[in-house]
Amino acid sequence: MTTTTALSHVDRMAKRAAGFQPSPVRAVFDISMQPGMISLAGGNPYLPVLPMDRIATMAGEVLARRGLEALQYGSGAGTEELQALICQVMELEGIKTAPENVQITAGSQMALELVTKLFCDPGDVVIAEGPTYVGALGVFEGFQAEVAHVAMDNDGVDPDRLQEVISGLKAAGKTIKFFYTIPNFNNPSGISLSLERRQRVVDICRAEGVLIVEDNPYGLLAFDGEAKPALHTLDPDNVFYLGSFSKIFAPGLRVGWVVAPQDVRGRLQIASEATTICPSVLSQLVVEQYVSGFDWRGQIAAYSAVYAARCQATLDALASHMPEGTLWTTPSGGFFTWVTLPEGIDTERVLAAAIEAGVVFVPGSAFHADGGGTNQLRIAFSYAQEEQLTEGVKRLGEAIRSV
Amino acid sequence: MTTTTALSHVDRMAKRAAGFQPSPVRAVFDISMQPGMISLAGGNPYLPVLPMDRIATMAGEVLARRGLEALQYGSGAGTEELQALICQVMELEGIKTAPENVQITAGSQMALELVTKLFCDPGDVVIAEGPTYVGALGVFEGFQAEVAHVAMDNDGVDPDRLQEVISGLKAAGKTIKFFYTIPNFNNPSGISLSLERRQRVVDICRAEGVLIVEDNPYGLLAFDGEAKPALHTLDPDNVFYLGSFSKIFAPGLRVGWVVAPQDVRGRLQIASEATTICPSVLSQLVVEQYVSGFDWRGQIAAYSAVYAARCQATLDALASHMPEGTLWTTPSGGFFTWVTLPEGIDTERVLAAAIEAGVVFVPGSAFHADGGGTNQLRIAFSYAQEEQLTEGVKRLGEAIRSV
Repeated sequence: MTTTTALSHVDRMAKRAAGFQPSPVRAVFDISMQPGMISLAGGNPYLPVLPMDRIATMAGEVLARRGLEALQYGSGAGTEELQALICQVMELEGIKTAPENVQITAGSQMALELVTKLFCDPGDVVIAEGPTYVGALGVFEGFQAEVAHVAMDNDGVDPDRLQEVISGLKAAGKTIKFFYTIPNFNNPSGISLSLERRQRVVDICRAEGVLIVEDNPYGLLAFDGEAKPALHTLDPDNVFYLGSFSKIFAPGLRVGWVVAPQDVRGRLQIASEATTICPSVLSQLVVEQYVSGFDWRGQIAAYSAVYAARCQATLDALASHMPEGTLWTTPSGGFFTWVTLPEGIDTERVLAAAIEAGVVFVPGSAFHADGGGTNQLRIAFSYAQEEQLTEGVKRLGEAIRSV
Repeated sequence: MTTTTALSHVDRMAKRAAGFQPSPVRAVFDISMQPGMISLAGGNPYLPVLPMDRIATMAGEVLARRGLEALQYGSGAGTEELQALICQVMELEGIKTAPENVQITAGSQMALELVTKLFCDPGDVVIAEGPTYVGALGVFEGFQAEVAHVAMDNDGVDPDRLQEVISGLKAAGKTIKFFYTIPNFNNPSGISLSLERRQRVVDICRAEGVLIVEDNPYGLLAFDGEAKPALHTLDPDNVFYLGSFSKIFAPGLRVGWVVAPQDVRGRLQIASEATTICPSVLSQLVVEQYVSGFDWRGQIAAYSAVYAARCQATLDALASHMPEGTLWTTPSGGFFTWVTLPEGIDTERVLAAAIEAGVVFVPGSAFHADGGGTNQLRIAFSYAQEEQLTEGVKRLGEAIRSV
């Protein structure tokens, strides 16, 4: 064996480390901090809607009353009280499950990391909507899983297309581990899977032996307040459900969860303990207070009202400023709309012109593992004020015309 | 291809999932919650030493003054202010590094997870002290890394033995990724690597192209208040340093960090973002307050004084109650002492008798990947009161004699 002393750190890394390289998307978030820049990029919740004085009081009380618990190591599963409260939250989407099936994590991103770690060997396939969440693609890449996309129309993934993709992958000898889906107000498309299609998607996956990972951070943020039943309700044994307090409360606490059948939940807990020992107990107790001693349903309605108005301002501005032949989705909840420019317009090139014009967004290619989405882009309307959204879309229109 | 619908969830898991199975150690922690049971098992810090009213005030103020920041997504690296404050903490061990080399994580357990994820392919070898931290063995197993132990004496690992192990592994064609070491008040042994040996260990690893992962949660908890210089000070480019606020402040916040050279730090951040997006911002801001607006050095001294007294009570009780031929370590800091019973006494069998007698501990086999430690056991003296430690060791002595 030759000496290895001359190897760089990068040379010594594991094969999977090739998946941890800086992406162009990361630069967008740095650029969005520049003065005068309007950001349509980041999907941050609009926290000024929270009554901060009450949250501050809550946190002080948690430490004054339960400080020794809040600051000590806790159960690797999460606190029993929060497990039970999460079950109450999920009831709004029709989910009936036992608290012990809930594994609490440091955000639902970590729940996806754990599920992928538990199920995916290198070369295994994950099926995902096209487009899908960029942070999920990062997780799959980190475990050397291949991603196959299923295109969406305005009702979500077409079950016939899902069946074709599964059959094609199996014919090619691939091992499919799960179908990753954001069924409500999809990030980045804003599209929701229609009620009619939900049963068929679940049936196909069950028949084909493909697990479903249902990622649902936005489900309770419907502009009309009507939550759709979760896929989990249709096949609890085959659907792992990921939930989060980041959008219905606050992301800075990092509290999310995964619901999984008992034979999986046990291993998820061991995997979770290997990663963080336990979720932040202080964060969990603050969330307990929020769900048990505060009108959190009213808070969700307050958030949704803000996002509905911002969505409408964005759609109006798109109608005024986009060139002919541009299409966009009309979300009924969540944080995002998805813009499709006429064929041949490269949104990475548009981005460079847009930054010159004082607006940033995330190009569509970021949400595809297969090079798709080059003439598409995501607009996040959750964080910027209505006037900023209007001005930002105007600048975007000018940038598109300049390319 | 045959249909996979009949496969159980476990059948479909990745190969690495075999590493996520319940271990006997887990049961010990459940048993330690039984009424009347004296626990010498868990390495929890003794939080009643903290002035809880002041911490509660701090947290309330953080939210009242900086609530929009505390509750929002933050930088994937951690906050810039905390990165800088962590550099101040590390100066106590002689470390001089730039804030941008600090990656903040949800506890140092997560830092170890990320380093292992970044470097270890299946079959790669991690060298570790024998015995070593059980939670580290879980991480290595989760990435299908093999573990080779280097035995310790009262001055830590013997550099000659380390050299032999490295040479032996290389002769066998193995790829060694790093030497994982807890150089100060090792968990579980309580042993520290002597100053004389530190340079040789660093030199050997540098010469052999083996990275060092220095895990140092206990380094500032020396009973005499004198911190040893970190291995990182001797070779910053080849030593990744893991630090934690769990023992010098509070574990329930889940704030730890890793210092790594810039070419590694960038990828660690991407890997960290894939796992949790960002560390809890609320927790980070509370830690900022603790380090910037509170006598944290005095708090460490207060913690250490409690642990020193408890350690002495434990050592006195061991002298009174252990059978002839029993050896134990004499720690000068940290949470643990390590007991070696006469050959042939199986501490897993002793554990069953001990539970009957009303005391639990962690058997030595838990801290070895190679079946070693069968006549050894760990005593944690950090959490139980002195009278409980005395009584617990007495019950342990009875249990040993009964086997």
